[in-house]
Amino acid sequence: MEQEVGGSRPPSCTKKMNKEKKLKPSKELPLGFTDRQEKELLTRDFIISNIKEVMVNYGFQYLETPSFEYSDSIGKFLPDKDRPDEGIFSFKDENKWLSLRYDLTAPLARYVAKNYQEISKPFKRFQLGKVWRNEKPGPGRFREFLQLDADFVGTKNLQADAELCILLADTLTKCGLDKNEFEIKVSNRKCFFGLLDWLKATDEKQRIAITRAVDKYDKIGIEGVASLLGKGRKDKSGDFTKGVDLSKKQIEDIIQYIKDNSLYDDENYPKDRFVFAPLAKWDDLSSLYNEGIKELSEVFAYTALSEFKDQIVYSPTLVRGIEYYTGTIFEANLLFKVKNQKGQEIEFGSVGGGGRYDNLINRFGNLDVPCTGVSFGIDRLVFALMQKKDFEIKTTRPVVICVFDKSKISEYSVILNRLRSLNISSEIYPGEGKLKKQMEYANKIGSPAVILYGDDEIKSGNLTLKNLETGNESSVKIEDLVDEIKKII
Amino acid sequence: MEQEVGGSRPPSCTKKMNKEKKLKPSKELPLGFTDRQEKELLTRDFIISNIKEVMVNYGFQYLETPSFEYSDSIGKFLPDKDRPDEGIFSFKDENKWLSLRYDLTAPLARYVAKNYQEISKPFKRFQLGKVWRNEKPGPGRFREFLQLDADFVGTKNLQADAELCILLADTLTKCGLDKNEFEIKVSNRKCFFGLLDWLKATDEKQRIAITRAVDKYDKIGIEGVASLLGKGRKDKSGDFTKGVDLSKKQIEDIIQYIKDNSLYDDENYPKDRFVFAPLAKWDDLSSLYNEGIKELSEVFAYTALSEFKDQIVYSPTLVRGIEYYTGTIFEANLLFKVKNQKGQEIEFGSVGGGGRYDNLINRFGNLDVPCTGVSFGIDRLVFALMQKKDFEIKTTRPVVICVFDKSKISEYSVILNRLRSLNISSEIYPGEGKLKKQMEYANKIGSPAVILYGDDEIKSGNLTLKNLETGNESSVKIEDLVDEIKKII
Repeated sequence: MEQEVGGSRPPSCTKKMNKEKKLKPSKELPLGFTDRQEKELLTRDFIISNIKEVMVNYGFQYLETPSFEYSDSIGKFLPDKDRPDEGIFSFKDENKWLSLRYDLTAPLARYVAKNYQEISKPFKRFQLGKVWRNEKPGPGRFREFLQLDADFVGTKNLQADAELCILLADTLTKCGLDKNEFEIKVSNRKCFFGLLDWLKATDEKQRIAITRAVDKYDKIGIEGVASLLGKGRKDKSGDFTKGVDLSKKQIEDIIQYIKDNSLYDDENYPKDRFVFAPLAKWDDLSSLYNEGIKELSEVFAYTALSEFKDQIVYSPTLVRGIEYYTGTIFEANLLFKVKNQKGQEIEFGSVGGGGRYDNLINRFGNLDVPCTGVSFGIDRLVFALMQKKDFEIKTTRPVVICVFDKSKISEYSVILNRLRSLNISSEIYPGEGKLKKQMEYANKIGSPAVILYGDDEIKSGNLTLKNLETGNESSVKIEDLVDEIKKII
Repeated sequence: MEQEVGGSRPPSCTKKMNKEKKLKPSKELPLGFTDRQEKELLTRDFIISNIKEVMVNYGFQYLETPSFEYSDSIGKFLPDKDRPDEGIFSFKDENKWLSLRYDLTAPLARYVAKNYQEISKPFKRFQLGKVWRNEKPGPGRFREFLQLDADFVGTKNLQADAELCILLADTLTKCGLDKNEFEIKVSNRKCFFGLLDWLKATDEKQRIAITRAVDKYDKIGIEGVASLLGKGRKDKSGDFTKGVDLSKKQIEDIIQYIKDNSLYDDENYPKDRFVFAPLAKWDDLSSLYNEGIKELSEVFAYTALSEFKDQIVYSPTLVRGIEYYTGTIFEANLLFKVKNQKGQEIEFGSVGGGGRYDNLINRFGNLDVPCTGVSFGIDRLVFALMQKKDFEIKTTRPVVICVFDKSKISEYSVILNRLRSLNISSEIYPGEGKLKKQMEYANKIGSPAVILYGDDEIKSGNLTLKNLETGNESSVKIEDLVDEIKKII
C-alpha cells in the first residue's frame, strides 16, 4: 500500500511494513510528551477545583470546545517560529484540514462567530482543556499543555481587563500562594506599537516580528534582543534566527526604551507601583502610545480598588509574543525560586497571562466583538506549587486485607465491604502471592496497614492489625477495627 | 511550497494558498466533534468526582499518560473496520509516526513495559482522559470521547475481574442511579472462543472477525449477524460490509448458540441470575469453553458477596469487539429509556465495560503481565444521567451590580468585594450599555438578582435589590444586603 500525499497512515498499518520487520514496539514516549504521577495529578486537581470556584464566583460560564477544529477556523497566531509551518498538529480529513487547537482563544473566537445570535452580550466563559503545539522537540519543551482560560467577549470596557488581573491574583492566592510570592505584570500593546509608530515601523508583519524579539528579553537579554532586531542571532545550539533588519537608529531607540523602562522590573522598585506612573521621558511618543497610557491608567484605577492592588504592577517591558493582542496585556510571575528537574534554580517565567484582542473574531465576517482574556498554564503552576516549601498534597493508599486462604474470601469480604462503606480506602490483596509477597506488595504501594485474618484470628474472633509505618502489630476486635484503623490513616 | 509525502501541513499555512483565496474561515465544527455547554460539563464534573472517590476507596492510583504515543507503541486493536487504516489519527514526526491514543489501555501497556521494574506487582491505576477515533464521520458518531479507566496489572486473580464489575455498579450508584436502573452483564471470551474451537474456526484473525460480527447483535439483530458471518451485509446507507464467509453449518451453530443464550438477556429472566447457571445444552463444548465457564463461576462466587450481586448478571451473548480481550468481559447497561437529540427513544448501549487482556503487554518483550480493566464512557454516562427524571445539576449565575455612573465604581467595588469574599457569585456589569441594556444582560444570563445603587440610593444609604425571578424590588440596607441575597439565590 502506498502512502498518500498528505495522508496520515502510520507504516505499522501497512501490510508491507508488517512483513518487513516484526520489531518490538517502542516503550518510550515521543519527545515533548510525559507521563504524570499521582502527586502531580492531585495537585493539579486541587488547583483546577480552586480556579473553577473563582470562575463561578466571578460569574464566568463553563464551556468546552473540542480538541479538533477546521484548520482555517483557528488560523495560526503562535509566537514560536522555530518550525514555521509546523507549529500545529494537522490532518487531512476527507477534503478539509483539521488541526488540534494550539490554544483555547482561537476556538472561542470560532464558537462566538458560530453562536453570535444566541450568546449574551457581553459573554463571559471559562474553559479547561489540553492544547498542543508541534514545536521542535527538545529537553523540557513540551508539546501538550493543560490550560484554563477565562474571557470577556463583546466588551471594550477596560474594567474587564482589570478584573482578569484581579482574578489571576485571587486564583493564585486561593491555590495557596502568599501575596509576596507572585506579581501580575501589566502593560499595553498600544504603548509598544506607539513606540513603533514613532519609529516609523508601521508594517504589521514587521511589528509582530519586533514584538516577538522584545518578548524574548527575559530569556536572551538586551544583547540578544538587539541582535534579533538587527541581522539575526545564533543561539547556543548553533541555530541561527534571522533578524528583523531594523536601522541602527531604530534598534538603539527600542533598546533605550527597554533599558529605561526596565526599572519597573527591579524588585527594589517602590512597592506602591499600583500608583501608575509611566516615565515622563517617553511621554507623548505618538497618539497610539498616548492611548495605551490612558488605557493603562484606567485599568490601574480599577485594580487599585482591589485587595490585590499591591500585586498588580506596571511593567512596560512586557510585550507578549502572541500576534492577536491589541491593548492591555498582563502575566503572572512567581517570585519564589523554582528548580528544574536537575535541581538547578531557573527563571521560571509566567504561570498565566493574557490580554485584549479586539480584532480576532472579525476574521469570521464583519462582527465587531472586542475581547479580553486570561490563560492559566496549569502544568507550570502545578510544577511550581509542588516546590513551594509548605505545600503538601495528601495521597491515599489502601489498607490491605491479606489472603491466608482463598476459601475464607467471604470473611475477608465482610471486612472489606464495611471499610469501603465508611470510605476507608481498602482492598483484599489483589495478586496471587503468599503472605511474604503480600507484605512486600503492601509496603511497595505505601499502604498504611495490613489486616491479618488467618485461622487463629477467625477462631479467636480478633483480627491482627499491622501498622506498616511503625511495624506495630495489635490484636483488634472486629467491632473496634474501624476506630483502630482511623488512628493509623 | 509543495506538500511533503506523509507531511501534515494544512494549506492555510502555505503561501500559495494564502494568495489564492482570502475566504472567511469556517464557523462550523468538523463532523464528529461538538461544543459542550455548562449543564453537561457540570454533570460531567459531578460524575468524575464521584468516580475518582470510588477509585481511591478501592485503592487505585492516579496516573496520566499523554495524548500522543509512538504509533507502534499503541498498535491498533479497534473494533471498527469502517476505515481500515484510518481508525487512528496519526502524524509523521521527524522520522517516526505518532498517533493520538484511541483508548487508555494501549498506553497503559506501554507505560507498564517502560516502568516494569518500578511498579508494584500487582499494579492498580486509574486514568481520566480524552481518546480519539478517526471513524467515518456521520450524525451522532463522535470522534473524541472522554474515558475513565481502572486496571489491575500483573495478576491472573479473577477476584480482580469481579472487583471491576462491583466497582462499575458502585460507581453508577454513587452517581445517582438506583439499583434497578442498570445492570452489569458478564461473560468470558474463552466461552465464545471455545465455541469457535468446537466449530474448528481456529484462525486468530477469523475469530476476531466472527467476534465483531456477533458483537453487533444488539444493533443489527440475528439476521444481520448471520449475513456478516456469511457473505456480507449491506446497511441502510447502502454500504456493504464483507462477511467472514463461514460454512452454513458453522453459521447455524453460532446463531443457535446466540438464540439459546439470549434468554439471559430477557428482562423477565429470574432476578437471582447471580446464581451462575450456564445452559446445560452447550456444556463441555471444548476445553477452552470449559475453562471460560470455570472462570465465570469463580467471578460470580465473588460478586455474590457484594451488595451489587443482583446487578451483576450472566450474559453469554456478550462478546465485545476489542481484539485484545482474553477472558472475563463485562459491560454496564442502563435500564431506563434514553432519548436521542431528536427526542426518539433509543437502544442506548453501554456506559462502561471492560475485560481481561492477558497478552497485550508481552508485545513489548517477554513480559508475562496478565491484566484486567474497565473503561467508563463518560460522555455517554453524562448524556444518560441528564435525562434521568429526578436528576438535577445546579448552575450558578452572578448577581449583577448595575453601573449608573462610572465615577461611582469604587462604591460598586466595595459591594462586589464583600459579596465575592462570601462566595456569592457576583459582578459589576461588564459591558458598556445603559441601564436597559444592563437589565437585558442580567436576564439573558439568568442572573438571580441585580443591585441598583444610583445617586438616590447612595444618598439614602440603601440599595435597591431586584429579584429577577419574581420582579420584586426592595430597598435594602447595605448591612442587610448579604442576608437578602441569600434568600434569593
